[in-house]
This record gives sequence, C-alpha cells and structure tokens, in this order.
Amino acid sequence: MALTNLDLVAQCDGFPYPDGHSDRYLVSINTYYQLRVAGYNNALGYMLPSVAEVFRGIPNWSLDDDERILTLTGGSTAEERSKAVETTLLAMRETGHFKVLNKWRDELYPVYGVGKELLFNVERSASPLFGVVTYGVHLTAYTRKDGELKIWTPRRARTKQTYGGMLDNAVAGGIASGESPFESLVRECGEEASLDEELVRSRAKACGTVTYWYVRDERAGGETNLMQPEVQYVYDIELPEDVMPKPGDDEVEEFYLWSVEEVQDAMRKGEFKPNCALVALDFLVRHGILTSENERDYIEIVSRLHRKLEFPTL
Amino acid sequence: MALTNLDLVAQCDGFPYPDGHSDRYLVSINTYYQLRVAGYNNALGYMLPSVAEVFRGIPNWSLDDDERILTLTGGSTAEERSKAVETTLLAMRETGHFKVLNKWRDELYPVYGVGKELLFNVERSASPLFGVVTYGVHLTAYTRKDGELKIWTPRRARTKQTYGGMLDNAVAGGIASGESPFESLVRECGEEASLDEELVRSRAKACGTVTYWYVRDERAGGETNLMQPEVQYVYDIELPEDVMPKPGDDEVEEFYLWSVEEVQDAMRKGEFKPNCALVALDFLVRHGILTSENERDYIEIVSRLHRKLEFPTL
Repeated sequence: MALTNLDLVAQCDGFPYPDGHSDRYLVSINTYYQLRVAGYNNALGYMLPSVAEVFRGIPNWSLDDDERILTLTGGSTAEERSKAVETTLLAMRETGHFKVLNKWRDELYPVYGVGKELLFNVERSASPLFGVVTYGVHLTAYTRKDGELKIWTPRRARTKQTYGGMLDNAVAGGIASGESPFESLVRECGEEASLDEELVRSRAKACGTVTYWYVRDERAGGETNLMQPEVQYVYDIELPEDVMPKPGDDEVEEFYLWSVEEVQDAMRKGEFKPNCALVALDFLVRHGILTSENERDYIEIVSRLHRKLEFPTL
Repeated sequence: MALTNLDLVAQCDGFPYPDGHSDRYLVSINTYYQLRVAGYNNALGYMLPSVAEVFRGIPNWSLDDDERILTLTGGSTAEERSKAVETTLLAMRETGHFKVLNKWRDELYPVYGVGKELLFNVERSASPLFGVVTYGVHLTAYTRKDGELKIWTPRRARTKQTYGGMLDNAVAGGIASGESPFESLVRECGEEASLDEELVRSRAKACGTVTYWYVRDERAGGETNLMQPEVQYVYDIELPEDVMPKPGDDEVEEFYLWSVEEVQDAMRKGEFKPNCALVALDFLVRHGILTSENERDYIEIVSRLHRKLEFPTL
C-alpha cells in the first residue's frame, strides 16, 4: 500500500505527543527511565526499563526505581564522566549485554546540558541505549535540467548493515563530538559523494534543521524500541549540470538523478531510509513543491519535521 | 536592551511546553478551560476561566467546572453551530462583556475537527476568547541588488489599532473561512502592496508554515492573556529590481528596501510586530543567513518556529 507523506513522518517521528494529555504519551513517559547526570535536574534521554535495569549496582551509576531515574554519578567534569561512561560500556560490550554494542564505532557523540555545556561523550553505538539526542548533517543535492528540478538520489550499498539498499539523501552522516555541522558536511561530501571541497564551501546552503523522535525498529539493528531523538542540520546544494556526485566509499551503490515525481514515487513505496524521507519532505516544502493545496496533512507534517525535543540540545 | 532571536521567538510562542513535565506547563493547562463541541472529545482551544465563566447558564453552552470544559451544545451541523456561536457573541457584544468584541470585524474564521472537517465559524475578533487556532498568510518579498539580498519591509500605519507603527512582513493577513491560503495571499498582495496579480501567481513560492502559541498582551488590544495559537502559511517572492511594493490601502505607511543587517538590527530593537519577526527569522534560516555557526539557539529557534499545536488544524 502506498505510504502517505504523514505515514513517512510518523515512521520516523514515532514517539507520541502530549496533545490533550494523550494516554499514549503518558503511558510512554511513565514506562521509561530518565537518564540524568548527578547535579543536574534535567532528563537527557529516556531509557527502556530493561536497559536501565542493567545499570543496577554498577559503580558510577545510581538507579532510582521510585522516580524512574538512572543517574550517572561518576565524575564531575565532562572528561571524568565520559571516562566513567566508557568504562561501563566497554565492560557491557565485553559481557555481550547489548546487541547495539556489537556495532561499536569508536566514534564519540556529545551529550549537552541546558546551558549547552558538554556533559559527557558517549560511544556512538551506545547512544540509543541512553536515548540521548544525536546530531547529524543531511544534504540535498539538486540541479536544474532545462528548467526542471532534478534531485541526486543515492542508493545505499546493499551490504550496509543498516537500511542496506534503501534510498538516501545525497550526503548524510553523524556529527562527532567536537566537530561543527558545516565541517562535518564538507568532510562527508568528499567521502560519500566525491564533491569538491571548494564547490561545497561556496555553494552548500544551511536551510534549518529537521528534528524528530525516532523509536528504533528492526531495520536499525540491535535492540528495538530504543529511543533516538535526532537533530539533522539540513543543507541544500544546487550543482552545475556537469557536476555528478560519485560514490567515494563503499557506502553508496549508485547515484540517480531523479525528477521530483520519481523521488515522490519512491517515497510512497517506502524505498527511502526513514529519516532521509523526512529530509526530502522538508526540501519539497521549502521549495514550494509540497503545498497546502496538494498535501492534506501539510500543517502537521511541517510541524513534525521540526519537533521540539524534550531534552537539552546544543 | 537588545533582544536575542530566541527572545523574539519566546515573545510570540509564549505558552509553556510540556518539556520534562514542566510545572509551568501543568499549571497553565490546569488553569484554563477547554473549548469543545458536543459529540467530539477534542479540545479546540483553551479559554481563561474568567471568559468561560461568562458562558455559564447561556443557551447552547454547557460549563463543566470539574472537568474544566466549556462545550458548545447548540447545533449539530457547522451551519447550526456557527449560528449558535454568532447569536451568543452578538448578545455579548451588545452587553459589552468583552473588550475584544468592540473590534468586531464581520469576518469569519473557521474551526476544524480532527478529521479536518469544519466544526463552526466564529467572528474573527472573538477567536481569542475561545483560544482556537487561526490561520493567516505572510509573504517575504526580496530582491537582489548587485548580488546582495534586500528585504522589502513595510511599516504599519501609526493609526492602526494593533501594533501601530511597527514593522511587518511585505504582505500579511488572516485567512477567512472558505478561502484558500494561496488565493488569500494573492488578494492581500493586491490590497496591501499593490503587487500585480500575475506576478504573484507566477513568482510567489510556498515555503511551509510558521506555527506558534501566542498569549496576547496589551499590544494586541482587548483582554490580555487570551490564547492565540496560530498557523501562518509562509511565502517568498523574489521581485525584479524594478518592481516596488506600494501601500495599496491605509494599513501601511511606507515600504523600506533593507539589507539583512538592517532587518536584523530592527528585530533586535523590537521594532517588528511579534509574529512578523518569527516569519523573518524563518526566512533567514531557510536562506542560510541564520546558521548554527552564528546563532547559539538555532535548534530551539527552528523547532519553535514550527510548534506542533495541541489542537486539530486544517
């Protein structure tokens, strides 16, 4: 069955909203454990009870079942906390506690407090265990051929562990701790699409963020139902007709130059990686292709592409 | 003191968020009365207790103090409900109950249910009494002079009852019941900026929505603290250098052609009508002028420009 654009949004922005005190929202909120850092009153993420349970009695952590809060008590600086988190995760990886840790990336993601201060860094593969906000960049590359807008659309390598063979945005990647969004974009443009650095620096345009609260399913790999609230910095680049992105590593199988209709058709068939469909929808909205006249759920879609996350963000 | 961009957002998107079960949110929610229509379970807006109180014992309305719900019981079709609402409001206007009704506009605003069906129409000036979602169009008109982007910025007539003398977007107006966003835009472009209809139809580009939950202050006129959740359909138009918007009615004093710096400077000084500052911020984000590199509150700002309203929308 064809997916509507709202279906595509809902697939990725799956955590319920508090609208009208919705029971679904309250049940969700009351099921999870909050992650906190000692000395700070804010939830930094939501964790499955089955995940929080594993931290019971472990040094540097304190589990409060009444308040449903897991607190990182080890360390009083970002460096010390990061070390405490790493020690715990390495041990858990060793004992094979969590499937997501089998995909250890040796890449650190930052977790921020309400003052935008770095609280700690966490190994990328572990971030969904804690349900903390993660950050990425997504670029839509397009060109105009005889006045018609065409979108460069890569297919992910079928061998990729996550979402293999699905369609993607021209360039996309996570932002490691300490890296700025734009520098991350420039790097990924070279690695994933062989785009010339100077071209990217002069032509890529920041166009906002797409934010959503993803609840992981089988396709993400590892444990399901882990929370993954995400911020994607979105960029557009209009490429000259003679510039063609080319796979620069083994992550992309092929780039297609597709019309808007071809992109929308593939979206309806569910061929896009879920969060890439959202970035594509945001592009279509900003470029006046998706409008209130042709999209019944326009208002809800535009809002949900920019969800206000409940946790501190950068 | 100079206003930050987040200050500007907060002025307009003033209703608290449920983040982390914030006390401010719960107190707000528990203070107001929900507006409902008989046979529907959804809140359509939030009303001040002092406003809901006035509907006690009035035909066609039922006030439930325990559940804090005011229900429109009169009528079973949109037409009948609209008539019941009108009858009540005309009587209240007669008796001088509400200051906002002194600005009676003879213009109807639609109120929708969860299935996007029209539930009833309500006189524009009365909509904040009920706290229902209202809809409008805002256009940013810009041009490129020697490669530099310049924004057409009108100053509202000083004689205007609301926000007199403040800065505005090139064209803005409310969408009356039965009117489509684009047709409303075309009409307003003629009335407010003397823009040629064909030019607008061929060049104006839909760019999404800006949504926020405004709590009315003195500058809006009438009772304060009334709720005004709003959806603004935003459009961009790039004008040829030789096209100049001209005031077409007595609502605008003058159009300035300003650089981005001049616009941002006026924003910092609080010279823009609050919701127009939000539309301007959205424009600056979409055009890569406001970025994560130069705006500390980028993520929060982008999300809050697209608030997901808790009530059904079109």
